Amino acid sequence: MKTIKTLGVIGGDMRQLYCAASALEDGYAVILSGFEKYGKPSGINNTDIDNALSNSDAIILPLPVSKNGTDIFAPYSEKPINTKALLSSIGREKPVFCGLEGKAPCEYFRDLRCYFYGRREDFAAANAVPTAEGAIELAMRVTDFTICGCRCLVAGYGRIGRVLSSFLKGLGADVTVSARKPGDLEFIKAAGMTAIRTDRLSGKYELIFNTVPSLVFDRKNLAACAVDSVIIDLASAPGGVDRETAGRMNIPVYHALSLPGKVAPETAGKIIKNAVYNIMEEEGI
Amino acid sequence: MKTIKTLGVIGGDMRQLYCAASALEDGYAVILSGFEKYGKPSGINNTDIDNALSNSDAIILPLPVSKNGTDIFAPYSEKPINTKALLSSIGREKPVFCGLEGKAPCEYFRDLRCYFYGRREDFAAANAVPTAEGAIELAMRVTDFTICGCRCLVAGYGRIGRVLSSFLKGLGADVTVSARKPGDLEFIKAAGMTAIRTDRLSGKYELIFNTVPSLVFDRKNLAACAVDSVIIDLASAPGGVDRETAGRMNIPVYHALSLPGKVAPETAGKIIKNAVYNIMEEEGI
Amino acid sequence: MKTIKTLGVIGGDMRQLYCAASALEDGYAVILSGFEKYGKPSGINNTDIDNALSNSDAIILPLPVSKNGTDIFAPYSEKPINTKALLSSIGREKPVFCGLEGKAPCEYFRDLRCYFYGRREDFAAANAVPTAEGAIELAMRVTDFTICGCRCLVAGYGRIGRVLSSFLKGLGADVTVSARKPGDLEFIKAAGMTAIRTDRLSGKYELIFNTVPSLVFDRKNLAACAVDSVIIDLASAPGGVDRETAGRMNIPVYHALSLPGKVAPETAGKIIKNAVYNIMEEEGI
Amino acid sequence: MKTIKTLGVIGGDMRQLYCAASALEDGYAVILSGFEKYGKPSGINNTDIDNALSNSDAIILPLPVSKNGTDIFAPYSEKPINTKALLSSIGREKPVFCGLEGKAPCEYFRDLRCYFYGRREDFAAANAVPTAEGAIELAMRVTDFTICGCRCLVAGYGRIGRVLSSFLKGLGADVTVSARKPGDLEFIKAAGMTAIRTDRLSGKYELIFNTVPSLVFDRKNLAACAVDSVIIDLASAPGGVDRETAGRMNIPVYHALSLPGKVAPETAGKIIKNAVYNIMEEEGI
Repeated sequence: MKTIKTLGVIGGDMRQLYCAASALEDGYAVILSGFEKYGKPSGINNTDIDNALSNSDAIILPLPVSKNGTDIFAPYSEKPINTKALLSSIGREKPVFCGLEGKAPCEYFRDLRCYFYGRREDFAAANAVPTAEGAIELAMRVTDFTICGCRCLVAGYGRIGRVLSSFLKGLGADVTVSARKPGDLEFIKAAGMTAIRTDRLSGKYELIFNTVPSLVFDRKNLAACAVDSVIIDLASAPGGVDRETAGRMNIPVYHALSLPGKVAPETAGKIIKNAVYNIMEEEGI
Repeated sequence: MKTIKTLGVIGGDMRQLYCAASALEDGYAVILSGFEKYGKPSGINNTDIDNALSNSDAIILPLPVSKNGTDIFAPYSEKPINTKALLSSIGREKPVFCGLEGKAPCEYFRDLRCYFYGRREDFAAANAVPTAEGAIELAMRVTDFTICGCRCLVAGYGRIGRVLSSFLKGLGADVTVSARKPGDLEFIKAAGMTAIRTDRLSGKYELIFNTVPSLVFDRKNLAACAVDSVIIDLASAPGGVDRETAGRMNIPVYHALSLPGKVAPETAGKIIKNAVYNIMEEEGI
Repeated sequence: MKTIKTLGVIGGDMRQLYCAASALEDGYAVILSGFEKYGKPSGINNTDIDNALSNSDAIILPLPVSKNGTDIFAPYSEKPINTKALLSSIGREKPVFCGLEGKAPCEYFRDLRCYFYGRREDFAAANAVPTAEGAIELAMRVTDFTICGCRCLVAGYGRIGRVLSSFLKGLGADVTVSARKPGDLEFIKAAGMTAIRTDRLSGKYELIFNTVPSLVFDRKNLAACAVDSVIIDLASAPGGVDRETAGRMNIPVYHALSLPGKVAPETAGKIIKNAVYNIMEEEGI
Repeated sequence: MKTIKTLGVIGGDMRQLYCAASALEDGYAVILSGFEKYGKPSGINNTDIDNALSNSDAIILPLPVSKNGTDIFAPYSEKPINTKALLSSIGREKPVFCGLEGKAPCEYFRDLRCYFYGRREDFAAANAVPTAEGAIELAMRVTDFTICGCRCLVAGYGRIGRVLSSFLKGLGADVTVSARKPGDLEFIKAAGMTAIRTDRLSGKYELIFNTVPSLVFDRKNLAACAVDSVIIDLASAPGGVDRETAGRMNIPVYHALSLPGKVAPETAGKIIKNAVYNIMEEEGI
């Protein structure tokens, strides 16, 4: 098996660029493609795709690989990169690290030696950090009060809820966290926060963060908790808030998605790189 | 189905006593049995077992039910309480909440309407708190230095590792946590601690806490991390430390087991009570 | 002595508006003046100054009272409010709560029953919170990485340094704090952070916050600590950074002043109100 | 001026021993005297006082120098060491680092080149850490419940109150801190705790820590806050609790003094050493 010396990084946004730059610092040779339009110097030359394919030992593709199916997700590329053409030209030998398929058809990946870093637990856990920070930055920006001293509700104690609630407490907020599992309620209390069952939400909160991908904040729970609140909804579309009712109640709702790449692309790029390294180690690549 | 109004609490140590006292405060009638030798006033009269059995709507048995198989675990009982006799006299109707069987044969429980609070995730999670505090109290007692400023290693990021590392950080220690799962390593970093893989332990630590129930601190890892350290081993017997090698290296090892009942029986008793309540709610008892 | 029932709030920015709204919630009658241009409904009617002066029991003036000497600081007023005219029409009887004089001549205040909330320790301490949060929000916005995991230096352990360093640690940063006083260095260590003497700065930091109002980051210290850093300077003008050298070194420097009113006017307004209440209690007003 | 190469460490308890050992590790030669009875090997030979005096460049005396006036505080010395004789034999040239005089008459020190490390702010600040940890260890030992989840009141926000409250919060307690100064109340809130004025104590607390050296917990405040509480009094004699009333109310009061030397002599010894080093640097010794 060939040792990986040169990484081809094709397409993607600033996360891919930072991923490439960080791998370069670690001693890899890096060939970058699909960044013609990136104005600022990145420290890595951009090249054409054929070069990136033929002279690399492994390929890193973006998260998602494609947003529309037809083209690789490559906002800094001058010309569209055809998904099918690119994927079919990689061949069976070379490891390909992809985020998630996105809208790219699954059969395109069938004949590749393909590893999805976007499906890994370590990737998801690491991204909870920029997501939580992005949510806090947003909350700071859209409110006229400080997080410190603020009554906050975090709905859900999964990865994001866990990191976010800890950060809010570190900023001096009065934090209540909701969870379904009795064991999680105990961990919330052990962290010095107030635990509440998600199916029994109550209390008045100035800031509400939803991390649960189901309709937690329906009419009943909006009335129970959210009068005079600001809501930041981190759940993937369609989110967990009845926005129509919230609108009628004059409760501002901010639906914040894909925060890592937006608020901390450098961190998000290093998270991609680390996930790729972990795959390489586990798979003996 | 009969509503539970009166709880019979039979045998056990101070945890059972506090469990009983706390249920009484919540409005249950409580009949206590097996505490003749408990000197101090507990606020609840101790009575004979027949009374406890016939006048209660549900029975709470200790953790473990029996340490030797023959007798119920009842250190405050004047006379031994025969396990088989007790269990067979309860009958099929009345709910029985047990910790764990211990050495009591499984067939004794077969004809009971039996619920094991000791097997629940919420029970285990909640007990991580008194375990972590007990470990810290022990560390404070056996060392001549403060936790604050101390380089600490916590091996393992399960329930206890998670709570213990957070408490140590809260006391101003310099905390490194080891874990196997890449996702856990990310949560450790998100908590502002140093993450290290359990299979690659290194560094010099003044205090080492082991929570992993396998031989993490073998000769190699003792040499790598533990010179001039104090080790507190929280893993169930036989523990995770090569004690013979540690002895030769003059590394003190404290094997601390069953801490909740020893260091915080009131908290541990309320944890039993809460687990019983959770069972009652889930099972519609 | 007349009990204060009605507060006249004249001029100022959104902090004064929130101060007024919060006093209203506490049961005071409030007369607001100098907010004609404030577009959104504030819940309090704006009135002319004569009304505010004659029908109030005490006056709250902004922070600062005047930015140019001639006019009261009143960005939401349609017409300028003459400082001398206003102050001379208040009279000796009525308590006047002022922030700081700003550019208003001291003699204008001589014949007033005047209390400066802006000089109080509780006011300064409370404002450390929105200042620290504003600094963190700014840092989050101008960097591509997360605070969590970031090596941060906070220069100075006064009010702001103390609150800011604690918030950064709560977000999972690796925090070093510099101080001059040996006692402060001990408190920094007790908080689980790295302490360093301000006259011996060293180390590599991704984020540097300066809170010291003197030239801490001169050429020598920039070279010692700030290569590849982002600097946020919170010290009052001219700040504590040699910006010319920093510019040559391509180190971005953000000089952030008067953060409370900008990032958290509601909190800042309540801080004004609380300081006024504290004065009233201490002075028996 | 002679450079200090050899330190004479005379008398004192284990703190002095650890101070000596730590200075030795830093490269000083150390002559120890007054530790004949110390059973365990300390790594430093004990010698007679004449040797310690004549062959050292500076002397470190204990804290306090004398507990009864007549003899040096030297619990590990076989024979009493006369205070007057020792001090008069040191001479004017050699720097002497003393903790505090204790009962030794002030005139004994008049002709010495004497520095009192026990009077320094850094010394007091650093000792807040072992004091706070000792208080927590004591609280853990004497209660049947965990600190985590416990309602705690810390009376006073001086050095000890500040460190202790932060540690309690780090252990997951629900912490209320009382202070007199309005500015301190703001710092308490900034730390995410509940602030309360010392002259308006109220609330129900399971654990109360007093750090204020005056009768805070008189009859009125005991009735207001302390029913069913455990009190740990850290204030120097006579303490801040009306113990007679507390006794009648069945409130256990633990008066814990001089904790650093008892619970963490190694840390306390290094604090002495650091204070001595700081004096040497400031004084150019």
